[in-house]
Amino acid sequence: MKILALDTSSMVASVAVMDDEKLMGEYTINHERTHSQKLMPMIDELLRSCGLTMEAIDLVAVAEGPGSFTGLRIGVATAKGLAHAMDIPVVGVSTLDALAFNLPFCQGLICPILDARRNQVYTALYQWNGGDLHRIEAPMAVALEEFIAKLLERPEKVVFVGDGVEKYWKILSDQLGERMILPPSTVKMPRASSVAQLALQKAQAGEVKSFYALVPDYLRKSEAERQYEEKRKKV
Amino acid sequence: MKILALDTSSMVASVAVMDDEKLMGEYTINHERTHSQKLMPMIDELLRSCGLTMEAIDLVAVAEGPGSFTGLRIGVATAKGLAHAMDIPVVGVSTLDALAFNLPFCQGLICPILDARRNQVYTALYQWNGGDLHRIEAPMAVALEEFIAKLLERPEKVVFVGDGVEKYWKILSDQLGERMILPPSTVKMPRASSVAQLALQKAQAGEVKSFYALVPDYLRKSEAERQYEEKRKKV
Repeated sequence: MKILALDTSSMVASVAVMDDEKLMGEYTINHERTHSQKLMPMIDELLRSCGLTMEAIDLVAVAEGPGSFTGLRIGVATAKGLAHAMDIPVVGVSTLDALAFNLPFCQGLICPILDARRNQVYTALYQWNGGDLHRIEAPMAVALEEFIAKLLERPEKVVFVGDGVEKYWKILSDQLGERMILPPSTVKMPRASSVAQLALQKAQAGEVKSFYALVPDYLRKSEAERQYEEKRKKV
Repeated sequence: MKILALDTSSMVASVAVMDDEKLMGEYTINHERTHSQKLMPMIDELLRSCGLTMEAIDLVAVAEGPGSFTGLRIGVATAKGLAHAMDIPVVGVSTLDALAFNLPFCQGLICPILDARRNQVYTALYQWNGGDLHRIEAPMAVALEEFIAKLLERPEKVVFVGDGVEKYWKILSDQLGERMILPPSTVKMPRASSVAQLALQKAQAGEVKSFYALVPDYLRKSEAERQYEEKRKKV
């Protein structure tokens, strides 16, 4: 089964192609958020380098969120469009799961942190156990201080990944001290290969979707929705 | 400091650009070994996507070996050529170090295995300790059975990476049983981002070279050299 995977949930645009368990190629750009211009040419380039066309792809996988609302919409819309055109199924993969999956068999806990604005972060907590990645805390939008309190209840070291780490490392470091671990840049940003590998696991478990059913998982209402609802309440 | 990193030590061709600690982009293709045709266009494509030209690059990093002799020659020759043209220094990074670096903070031991033909493998042994990657066994060309004997003297689980694993997994599994761990495909093949990150550490330690001084680290004599020496002995 050949999987085309996309992740545009952040500043980073990443595409990958897997053939069953074999990663055929991956292309990741962390420079200027112009996903709407760059994503399709990146897919084109990668498929050509792998000697493939869209006709060879059996499944489209996409990082479904949480993350940048605009980024998620571009990724999910592209996945839906490609799947519709080729009449193939899709799989949505949690952005946070995929980030944690960048660190196979990692010691301690893995905590992805994405900036959610309005004094919140998107986060979750993971641990590798016997070759499998386990969620200890499900994805949530939460005030960072509240989540740090949860981390302080546990003894393990915590490896932080995701684009929120740069913004919040001072608070994390002050609160967690030597328990805060920062990994090298090679693993702390989204990689479509992780999305592809998790999508393969989901597909093997029968968790594929029609392109009609796929929607971004924002975890929280957008600013526009929130303001609209407040306005309606007043009326 | 902007680093352009290359890894063509195996079937996989991988290029990456780092700006200090920030990974700007990475492009990896694991499909048909035509590095001589593909490498320069891949570098071109990646630089353009990162909004850069070769003039912006301060250092060229390359996986210097061990690995495929032809692959290493293409990678090292390209690195030397680019560095010569731009008059910038180079850093050679061990292919085995870079493979182990794909798994930051990994539990247990990490063992890269590359097929060296003639009943040998290129291998080494690593362990993460307090945020740093330590070499427990230095890179060597060795009969696999001999190396497995070393592994059997230790209690830890061993995560195997590299393109030799597919060929030898049955022997490894028979000898090591549940101590043998196979990671997902996302981390088991060379990634130029790991080469870039290790090159940054070397550059910070002053370990840069002139392009004149850089040579592949084959670890073992080539078949042609071996035959030539045997012929000379007979004469």
